[in-house]
Amino acid sequence: MDRLNPVLVELTRGDLVESQHRGAIAIADAGGRIVWSCGDIARPIYPRSAVKMLQALMLVESGAADAYGLSTEELALACASHSGEPFHVVAVRAWLGRIDCDDACLACGAPLGADGQPLTRAHHNCSGKHTGFLTLARHLGADIAGYQQPDHPVQRRVLATIAEMAGIERDSMPVAIDGCTAPAVAMPLANLATALARIADPSQLAPERAAAAHRLDAAVKARPLYVAGTGRACTAMIEAAAGAASVKTGAEGVYVAALTDRGLGVALKIDDGAARAAETAMAAILAATAPVSETALTTLGLTATPLLNSAGAVVGARRAASWLPETVGGLSTCP
Amino acid sequence: MDRLNPVLVELTRGDLVESQHRGAIAIADAGGRIVWSCGDIARPIYPRSAVKMLQALMLVESGAADAYGLSTEELALACASHSGEPFHVVAVRAWLGRIDCDDACLACGAPLGADGQPLTRAHHNCSGKHTGFLTLARHLGADIAGYQQPDHPVQRRVLATIAEMAGIERDSMPVAIDGCTAPAVAMPLANLATALARIADPSQLAPERAAAAHRLDAAVKARPLYVAGTGRACTAMIEAAAGAASVKTGAEGVYVAALTDRGLGVALKIDDGAARAAETAMAAILAATAPVSETALTTLGLTATPLLNSAGAVVGARRAASWLPETVGGLSTCP
Repeated sequence: MDRLNPVLVELTRGDLVESQHRGAIAIADAGGRIVWSCGDIARPIYPRSAVKMLQALMLVESGAADAYGLSTEELALACASHSGEPFHVVAVRAWLGRIDCDDACLACGAPLGADGQPLTRAHHNCSGKHTGFLTLARHLGADIAGYQQPDHPVQRRVLATIAEMAGIERDSMPVAIDGCTAPAVAMPLANLATALARIADPSQLAPERAAAAHRLDAAVKARPLYVAGTGRACTAMIEAAAGAASVKTGAEGVYVAALTDRGLGVALKIDDGAARAAETAMAAILAATAPVSETALTTLGLTATPLLNSAGAVVGARRAASWLPETVGGLSTCP
Repeated sequence: MDRLNPVLVELTRGDLVESQHRGAIAIADAGGRIVWSCGDIARPIYPRSAVKMLQALMLVESGAADAYGLSTEELALACASHSGEPFHVVAVRAWLGRIDCDDACLACGAPLGADGQPLTRAHHNCSGKHTGFLTLARHLGADIAGYQQPDHPVQRRVLATIAEMAGIERDSMPVAIDGCTAPAVAMPLANLATALARIADPSQLAPERAAAAHRLDAAVKARPLYVAGTGRACTAMIEAAAGAASVKTGAEGVYVAALTDRGLGVALKIDDGAARAAETAMAAILAATAPVSETALTTLGLTATPLLNSAGAVVGARRAASWLPETVGGLSTCP
């Protein structure tokens, strides 16, 4: 992090800025051309869960999704960081049953509930992604055990697909371990935005992959509650975009979007990893680049969000930098 | 935020830095001399709950604490951001009863429980501070209603005391509204560190205030569970310091310490407001400046904390910048 990224989001209290979040943003087309950027988009970052749609491509492209008759909800869950609400857990368990698996097959651990007690592995926000991996393993006739290891046939295919979509060499893509035990790749924001642009505009992809990209993007847009959950920012933004865009958050301040109607991909990372800032910046970008009214996003609490104290009075605000919607909307230069 | 603050805390994953937190730190003596600093310590920041010991001084200095026979636990609660555990709530309610008040007298709202349902006002992390304000109002014979307003006799005295301790003019200290409805002052870190140094070394204060500072600091050290709660960083650090220091967190990435055995005050603010970074930086400073073993703090999960995935494997670490303990320990120049 040698170059200094600009302040993307501020929190005010009274007359002062109380906290600020720096970060970088890339917007690319499907040819890999950067049409707008701000900050350092060449440094490798971990997209974390923001690559879930890319991780799910092979599930569809391989024929596994059709072989196991996956529903729209299940395809959305494969791309999800869900909240573990009852309808998520029920759907994951039913899908696991159809591939002759159960909770114990999932390599992700059991998260803790609000009371601090462990839930089940199916409650893990990544359980849909993992069930997708298991489905691909079944379809390939591969071992179930170890499906999350980078050298397993499932992950070898998934990692190769991510690299191709991002326009990066597989071997130049660092691979660490994610919170859910799956491989966590790193890549520059420029490449991540390119991969999302190829979801938004799959016209230059091979036919099977183009069909897979289109189908997953359509599933995410059709079932936004399965991608995140009740009251979640991803769900609200996908609903507000009404088919013009899909978005996905990733841990540690990452957000991506496929702007379908413009054929562009967006990727951003907040330096300090704050989800609140990633969400506010993505909402501002969406309002500026997609047919989503800023009023709708403000109503959803996603832009220029007032800060309330415990008695309900407005004491400040969380807002994107004022230059962000202006410059990104006109694709003019970032300050 | 014109000047750029250094990176104080990093999170790694695999071989890369995943997220980083910038901030500033001031260490002062009771005369207001800055003995060490890094980053911009002249810009006003909101200390938030990190001024609670300063807000409680007048409670003791005025004679109110003695008039109402406040216990050591109650003095600690007056300085607390407590977790609303049963023993906190029971103690606050008993104290409220002794001053002929109840939950309804508290101006702080009721927080939400883990299940999303509202608890009572006594559960609010600031309920001890508010009960201290109410006790001072009773002792002054002032109205109970509106005790949280900046022009109420209670807050006029509290704000004047904070300004005197910090060595700043009352009128040059911006006042916004805190999450709990009480006034939220702003001041440079240099002044906040000075105020904490005067808690650590009250020898130059007027006798009544020196006695109040000493008594509150002693109460915080004697009852660290009442200052925060089970498993909380403030409680763990005060216990680890074993009488050599008291610490206090404030919302949006603030931490302060009174290093009693060295007569110094510490104040830090993370630019982006992250509590995880403020905590890690303060633990590193404490290990370098107080007789607290780094091993003890590491065991408490406060320094060089491994990041675990949901299966319990180490995937990265959260750590203070390597130069921080070295330079702060020797009071040598910040890079």
